[in-house]
Formats: sequence, C-alpha cells, structure tokens
Amino acid sequence: MNKKVISVGLIGYGTVGRGVVKILEENQKIAFRKVGKPIKIKSICDLKPIDKTELYVNNFKSIIKDPEIDLIVELIGGYEPARTIILEALKAGKNVVTANKAVLAKYWDQIFTAAQNCQKSIYYEASVGGVIPVVQGLSEGLASEEILEIKGILNGTTNFILTEMTQNGVSYQDALKSAQNAGFAEADPSFDVNGIDTANKLAILSSLAWGGWVKVKDISTKGISDLKIDDVLIAKKFGYDIKLIGSAQKTKDGLDLSVQPCLVHHDNAFATVEKEYNAVMITGKDSGDVLFYGKGAGQQPAASAVVSDIINLSKFIVTNTAGIVPDVIYDKRKKIKILPSGRSKSPYYLRFKVSDKPGVLAKISGILGKYKVSIASLSQPNADDSEAQIVIITHDTLKENFEKALKQIDATKSIVKSKTVKIKIEN
Amino acid sequence: MNKKVISVGLIGYGTVGRGVVKILEENQKIAFRKVGKPIKIKSICDLKPIDKTELYVNNFKSIIKDPEIDLIVELIGGYEPARTIILEALKAGKNVVTANKAVLAKYWDQIFTAAQNCQKSIYYEASVGGVIPVVQGLSEGLASEEILEIKGILNGTTNFILTEMTQNGVSYQDALKSAQNAGFAEADPSFDVNGIDTANKLAILSSLAWGGWVKVKDISTKGISDLKIDDVLIAKKFGYDIKLIGSAQKTKDGLDLSVQPCLVHHDNAFATVEKEYNAVMITGKDSGDVLFYGKGAGQQPAASAVVSDIINLSKFIVTNTAGIVPDVIYDKRKKIKILPSGRSKSPYYLRFKVSDKPGVLAKISGILGKYKVSIASLSQPNADDSEAQIVIITHDTLKENFEKALKQIDATKSIVKSKTVKIKIEN
Repeated sequence: MNKKVISVGLIGYGTVGRGVVKILEENQKIAFRKVGKPIKIKSICDLKPIDKTELYVNNFKSIIKDPEIDLIVELIGGYEPARTIILEALKAGKNVVTANKAVLAKYWDQIFTAAQNCQKSIYYEASVGGVIPVVQGLSEGLASEEILEIKGILNGTTNFILTEMTQNGVSYQDALKSAQNAGFAEADPSFDVNGIDTANKLAILSSLAWGGWVKVKDISTKGISDLKIDDVLIAKKFGYDIKLIGSAQKTKDGLDLSVQPCLVHHDNAFATVEKEYNAVMITGKDSGDVLFYGKGAGQQPAASAVVSDIINLSKFIVTNTAGIVPDVIYDKRKKIKILPSGRSKSPYYLRFKVSDKPGVLAKISGILGKYKVSIASLSQPNADDSEAQIVIITHDTLKENFEKALKQIDATKSIVKSKTVKIKIEN
Repeated sequence: MNKKVISVGLIGYGTVGRGVVKILEENQKIAFRKVGKPIKIKSICDLKPIDKTELYVNNFKSIIKDPEIDLIVELIGGYEPARTIILEALKAGKNVVTANKAVLAKYWDQIFTAAQNCQKSIYYEASVGGVIPVVQGLSEGLASEEILEIKGILNGTTNFILTEMTQNGVSYQDALKSAQNAGFAEADPSFDVNGIDTANKLAILSSLAWGGWVKVKDISTKGISDLKIDDVLIAKKFGYDIKLIGSAQKTKDGLDLSVQPCLVHHDNAFATVEKEYNAVMITGKDSGDVLFYGKGAGQQPAASAVVSDIINLSKFIVTNTAGIVPDVIYDKRKKIKILPSGRSKSPYYLRFKVSDKPGVLAKISGILGKYKVSIASLSQPNADDSEAQIVIITHDTLKENFEKALKQIDATKSIVKSKTVKIKIEN
C-alpha cells in the first residue's frame, strides 16, 4: 500500500470528538511509531459549523463517498443516523471506529453481518467501560474461555451519583446535580439513570462472550432514579454500598441477565469503585475471576479509547489486512437461551414501612414464609420521620416467589403504609 | 488457505503444557467457533517420553522442520534452548506462542527483530500476569497513551508467600513451605523469591510501553527471602501490607525502575491482591489509572492464556495474515534513558535494633538529618526478644542520601546491634 497517510473522517464533534482531535494531535509521534504512517483527520462532520473550518463538512455522505478516507469515526451516538452511517461506510469499503453502544446493542446482527460481508473492520472498544480495554480483554484475552459470568459497574454517571449519595448522604436529586456540575451527567440523564446505557453495554459484552446476539430487551433492567437516601444509609450501616450492577450469568436454564441497583458488601471489589470509575469482572471456567478497572466517563478517557482503536485499526489498514480477520465472530444461527427473570435467585434487602401495631411482624414473616422467602436477618432501624420500619435481609430467593410475597404484603394496608423497597444483594 | 486444520507443535510438556492440551480438548468448540477451523496438536516434544505416546517426539528440531506445523508453542522456560527454538521456528516460517518471560526479557532485541524480518508473529500474553490480558491491554488497549507509570504485583509465588506471612503470622520459611504444598512455589523458588521473575515481567511491560528495550539489568531488584515476620507484623499495625512491587515510572531524568518489597497501605488496591493473584496498574496521561487483576499462577490460568494466544494467532494463520502487522513495535535505535537508582525518591520504613542506652535516638535522628532524611513518624514497638527497637517512617527521600545515612548508622556499633531494615513505602 502506497498511501502516505491514514485519512480519517470524523462524524460527530461533541465532547469526545474534540478529545479525539486533541489526542491525535498531541500524541502523533506515539501513533506514528505504532502505525508507521501519520494519521490525519481529513474531514469533520457535525450538525453545526465547528472551529476547525478547514475540515468541516456539513453532510456525512461526502465523508463516506470520499475515496481518500480510509477510516470513519462515528461519534454522534443514538440509533439514527448512526446506524445508516456505519452500514453505508462499511458498504463503501471504509473501516469504522465507534463509541456508540446504543446502535451496536440494537443492531448487532445487522452491523456485524455487514462487516463480515464487506470484509471491513469495526472497532468499538470505547463503547463499553470508557478507557478500560474490556472488549478486547473479553474477546481476545479470554478467547479460550468458557465464560461463566460477567458483572460490572458500567456507567460512570450513575456510579458518580451513587458515590455522592453514599459519601455525602445527599438525595438522588442533589447527587444528580453534583454529577451534572462535575460534567459527568448530561442535562437529560435518563438513559444513564434508568439503566438503559448499562443494559446496552451488558448486551454487547454478553453477545461477545456467548457468540450470539443478546438483546437489550432480554435484560431485566431497573435504574437508580427512585433510590432513596434512607436505603443508602441503612445499607451502609449494614456494611454495604449500593451500586448499579449489570450482570450476566450462565445457568443450566439459560443466561440470567439483569441491570439493577445492588447491595455490594464493603469487602467486595466493586465497593471500592467510586465516582466515574467503572469495573468489569469476568469469570471463566479456567481463568477464574479477571477484573478490569478504570475511568468509565469523561472526555479524555473516552477519547483515548477511540484513538487507541484508530491506531490499532490503522496498523491493519496500512498493511491492507483490515477486516480480513473478523473482529466479532457472530453466528446468526446461534440462539441464546435466556433465563426468565422470575427464575433468578439471590438474596434481597427489604424495607417495609409498617403500621405501628402489634402483630405486623408476624404477618410479614408469615407471608414471606408461605412463599419460601427465608429471613437471614431482621432489624427495626429508626426512621427519620419516626415511622416504624422493618429491614429484612433474606437468604437466596427465587425472584418470582419473592415478588408474589411482596405483592401480597403490599396489598395489605393493615400491614404496610407504602410500597416495600426491595434491592438485590450481590453474592 | 486450504488447510483443514491448524497444526500445533508443543515443546515442553510440564504443568502448563499439560494444561494447554487439556483446555484445547475441552474447549475445542469454542476454538472452532472463533477460528473457523479445528486446532490440533500434532506433536509434543519433551525431555522424557510422555503419556500421549502417539504425539511424542524427542527432538524439537523435527517439530520446527515439519512443514505441516503452523504454530509452535514454547513452554520449556529458561534461556536455552528456548531462545534457539523461538529463533529457529521464526526462521522456518512458523508463528510462535510462548509463556517464557526470561527469554523474552533477555533477548527482546534479537527475538522481535527476527519476528519482523521473518514476518511471523510471536504471542506471549501468558508471560506476564498469568491469565490477565495485560500485554494486549497495554500495547493495544492503551495504544494511544503516553504511559506515565506501570506498577504491579507480578509474581503469584511471592504474593502467596507474603499473604501467608501477613494472614497467619508465620515466618518466610514456613510460608514458602505452604506455597510449595499448595503448588504455587517450585522446589527451587529462587527466581521467584529473589525478584528476577518480576523484573523479567517488568522489563517486558516497560519495553512495550516505551517502545525500546528495557533491560533487566536496568531494574534495581530486591526479593523477599530476607523479609522478617517482625516487619510484616509491625507494618500491619501501622495499616500496611508488604507486597513485592515491580514499578516503572517515567521521570524527566529517565525511567525509574525497581522491584522490591514495599509497604502498601490498606486503602491501596494492591493491598487487596491476595494469594496467587496478580494486579497491574497502568497510568496513562489521558486514561488515568487502569487496573488489571486476575490469577497470576497456577496450571489453568497460565494454560488458559496460552490457549487464548493460540486461538487469536490461528485466526490470522487461517487468513494468511499472521505476522504482517508486527506484534511488537520495536525500534532498535530508540534508546531508553534510565534514572540512576540512587536518584529514586520515596518514603521509607526503617527498623533499627538499638543499644538500650540513652542518646541513641538523638544520634540516629542526627545522622538522618545530616543526610536530609526527614522523619514523618517514629515509634518504639516492643520486640519479642525484648531488644530495644525504633521504627521510623520517613518523608520522601532521595535513595542515595538515605543509603549514605544508613551506612553511617549501621557502621556505628554504639548505636545499632544489627543491620537496619529498610523497606520502601508505596505512595
């Protein structure tokens, strides 16, 4: 190949896009040493004009059509036109780097089938875990493994909010404001705080680990926006932090997939993951536990991961070998069996706001017992508003039994005054 | 390529070699899904006959000469004939997988120059950190980064011994016996306990990070074999564990390279790394801290990493693209500047066995002051043998000043009764 430079077309010039341009400029010697040719950004497309006027184009199609461009970086996020850009770029013979977890999780089948058919590469390390190289760690580093479990704190925004709540005892709303002020939450944080972003990332890791297509809709997903500071503080007294955990576990009856706030004991490695940091624990049959940890949000970490992808892919572009070895081994025919969410088993934390009458505890424990929910410990902490409350930690419980019990308890107004709080406890 | 199978020649049938054969058999479906062809071990060479008689050959040269073999796995360890095997295999057009950190660290220049000249690949993920994919994480995952620091617990044997000493309060000798019984220390553990194995791994990571050849002789290396249980227990009371840390830090005057036992505070992530586990923290300018953690010793984790390398390399062999993109970007001309070990700065833990006479403390602090060693805290714990002792934690100190002070103190028999114990404190 006689190209003198690797030409990059960048689509999306937001926070991460600007970070990519900055790092590519600052670290051009590092990139050159690894690729053997300079990497240059030839065009940048964004909805509105940008400071780098000489590179600006207002239509992504002109980037895709440009025969000089080798590699397209998609950083606009969301489903459309991101999906169109990626598919059109592959068809036009371009290699692609993206940080877009939403489009990958939703169109996994379409995107990786297109990449295989076009024999082009799509790198997406920045889509999961920010700067942590967990996509590669899972798909190549643990290539030989039968993966048993993937568990992670995969969203920097929610982890920042939960850390604020835990460390400063502030409400969810106040913690969200702190995260927004620190630049770790967007004006509309709903995709982060409702768990969708974590579910997208878990779907990507699970699809990689088990070689089929694990869909976001198969993941039982609950966010943190209705989490009460009371529960954070009570959990803390019991030796737990609350973290938003994405979890995929291989069971004999199918994959057990969930995203939910969980009580994590202080001894657990996840409890030490604070602020915008992420961590992913992958358990293989022969490897045992392997943990990856690093910054999951922020301009520099995200942009760093994108630039690493650009460099790694450029090495193959220079030697005319990009896309020959598929990056994702995806077999359309492989069906992944999913465990129905009710069949999931774990211990739970329950907080009941109760009527302060005799016999209430007996009634609660009676109903729990009827549905085989076994109590590990029970306490009656003082509530600030001086309402009576009961906190119960259960043993391992089948989710469907447990929900039936709670439904019955919550329907009985003579027992509880409001909906019972339930939070999974991480083993 | 019309090959029906990927043919592997295995040289070295010890613990890890047997693990490789077992995992390749058990996980052949996983391997096939990723490679698209079956991987078969065609020949195994070892010094003495093996149970798999149909595969046994007694001379590695017949494996290297075999035109059907695509990939040679070197698992004999040590310098020779490992070096010859790797170089001859590359020359014969074979790709290579090795777990041999000693040969890589010592012959980095020769081996990677040969790989580039022969356009063949050499994968060596299992050589550092056992099952942890840190070689790839550093060279690809953090490809865009200016690496500022690498720090790691890189030897499972010594970490197992140190964990035994810390948790059970036993002597080095007893802890070593436990490690041998548990299968985590060899009959002759000297390469592990004297720090050489850690230095080999640090040299590999540093060479990768800074793109030149960092030699083992440039790493100031101290092992754990003269570590006293007294210091482990005193450190514990002060809130520290003792760990063998390999550290490479970029400073304006060159790389600061060391392997030594260090006091690590209980708040530090390294303090939670127990038994045979390893951990590596890599700090990049844009990425910040990225941590990798997993099993650093044991048959299955080591063999798993080797098989992952075999699978990843086979994907390129199948498509005739192995070795086209060099695995290690090594530039012979790049000189790495090394900081003289005396110019290294850190706080220290000191334990003096002193004469129980008035004025001793004044003399010690006088000499320390003369050489600009500033005391952060001082205490006089009871020694079991009822000898008087003084423990001092210093502020950041230039190593050469500090050693001059200790030399003078240790030479003064009226002050100390035996050689002063000094251990670096991790910041």
